[in-house]
Amino acid sequence: MTTPSSKTAVAPGEPAPRAAEAVIAGGGTMSDIREAQALIWTGKGPGGLIDVLEAGSTIAWIQLPSAGIESYTSVIDEDHTWTCAKGIYARPVAEHALALALAGLHRLPELARAYTWRKTVCRDLCDDRVTILGGGGITRALLPLLAPFGVTTTIIKRHPEDMPGATRVLGAERLDEALEDADVVILALPLTSETEGIIGAAQLRAMKNDGWLVNVGRGKLVDTDALVTALQEQWIGGAALDVTDPEPLPDDHPLWDLTNCIVTPHCANPPPLERENYARLIRDNVRRFFEGQPLEGLVDPKLGY
Amino acid sequence: MTTPSSKTAVAPGEPAPRAAEAVIAGGGTMSDIREAQALIWTGKGPGGLIDVLEAGSTIAWIQLPSAGIESYTSVIDEDHTWTCAKGIYARPVAEHALALALAGLHRLPELARAYTWRKTVCRDLCDDRVTILGGGGITRALLPLLAPFGVTTTIIKRHPEDMPGATRVLGAERLDEALEDADVVILALPLTSETEGIIGAAQLRAMKNDGWLVNVGRGKLVDTDALVTALQEQWIGGAALDVTDPEPLPDDHPLWDLTNCIVTPHCANPPPLERENYARLIRDNVRRFFEGQPLEGLVDPKLGY
Repeated sequence: MTTPSSKTAVAPGEPAPRAAEAVIAGGGTMSDIREAQALIWTGKGPGGLIDVLEAGSTIAWIQLPSAGIESYTSVIDEDHTWTCAKGIYARPVAEHALALALAGLHRLPELARAYTWRKTVCRDLCDDRVTILGGGGITRALLPLLAPFGVTTTIIKRHPEDMPGATRVLGAERLDEALEDADVVILALPLTSETEGIIGAAQLRAMKNDGWLVNVGRGKLVDTDALVTALQEQWIGGAALDVTDPEPLPDDHPLWDLTNCIVTPHCANPPPLERENYARLIRDNVRRFFEGQPLEGLVDPKLGY
Repeated sequence: MTTPSSKTAVAPGEPAPRAAEAVIAGGGTMSDIREAQALIWTGKGPGGLIDVLEAGSTIAWIQLPSAGIESYTSVIDEDHTWTCAKGIYARPVAEHALALALAGLHRLPELARAYTWRKTVCRDLCDDRVTILGGGGITRALLPLLAPFGVTTTIIKRHPEDMPGATRVLGAERLDEALEDADVVILALPLTSETEGIIGAAQLRAMKNDGWLVNVGRGKLVDTDALVTALQEQWIGGAALDVTDPEPLPDDHPLWDLTNCIVTPHCANPPPLERENYARLIRDNVRRFFEGQPLEGLVDPKLGY
């Protein structure tokens, strides 16, 4: 059981009420940074985090609020234990990915912008081939949603071991092969030095000319200039992007005008700290930390996710 | 087994090649209308059908090409056996219904028309309440697609008996109750004198003010004027319509301009005679007819579907 020494700080600024409640629900006690053993970081990014860690010399574990943590790379060290919110938002992000894939095949991006009735033939996801890049929480949440469509699923994953519900799991060296016959390609990867630009001109040319690209990972996974050309010249059927590079996407960007493209403003991932399951993660990780149990969402500082 | 007397006509006009092939694959022989026992109707509607039936006095069974047959009501009699294509297109129509429901909740109709990045909060289908009007083939195909979302499903059906995968099945007299707490209401009913205008102002007012209406049945199931008001005054969250009244929807219709509405041009149901499964239905029904087996898609002339 936890003791009154389970000192946890919430920073920056005034403790977010839900975060503080979750700390207490997990058996922690709210504490000043200078005495804290654990830190629940509520900032929108890493700004100020280094200073907090310098002031809080007894902090051993830091909980970060987002699933993707590429912006924290310069701060994350091996002297502390770091956890992020990976997996926590997997379910809604997976649902958004499916909504975007179905929208693309059923031509909703184009039809939503129509002001006249014109004969249109939609495609089906049923019996299609779906390739998913990434084998983390989003993919694990997406596979059961895809199951009733009878699709053939290929997962591209660093360590290609079987995944329940996936037809096959391949290593990254077989990416081009997995793109060639895919009707839908879904990006659900973290952004690291290895995954940046993983979809460039060559990969877009490898895709079927009616295949749809769905990105719910990070904008920089895709070479945006190459994507614009691919959409303009119809190398692929279309793209549905919840994340873009740059982000926010500027008003004059060509992606806005392409009818074979839909951009959603990074809304698959619900706002941090507003979701019950993030409060639950804080509560559970606070309890685990002070009980010496393994933490959820552990970051590998070397891999960067 | 069938014999050389298994005479089947395909009308109007020259026999559609796939229909003729399917007749022969089913053991039928192609025949002139005046000698046919079976008629595969390939017209876009009932125009000319009465004349064909008058000329074909030996015709006992007519296969109609569409799932909804409200336009044939004046021709369908009790002197012939009638079958339609109900159920054949259920799978793609169910998928389109799910695509529209997800698009609505994830705000894609509005986001597809955006030309700027604006913070947006999407909703989830996960754990929602879904009410489906109609308990036919579309609903049977839709329930397995909805299952992994963990939704509570209420089916409104003429004869409320249990359906696999449905949380509850209610009779039409409990419609208002089933609308009140639904996050998504899906119309998958045939159009008959009983179902025409089943969703009017009172039903739209009964719905949640963030609920989405999805229509993949027939346009006249909904009072369109009431729907326009409901969307303009935000009685409901939005509407996603694959069918409209009138149809085609005229260019100056207010539904085109509403960002909480998406219209798809009756494309959930793929073009008749172009689908393998319609050819398969013809083949199987020809075989069944000449072997004296029960036919698939049998029409009840009294019920009108």
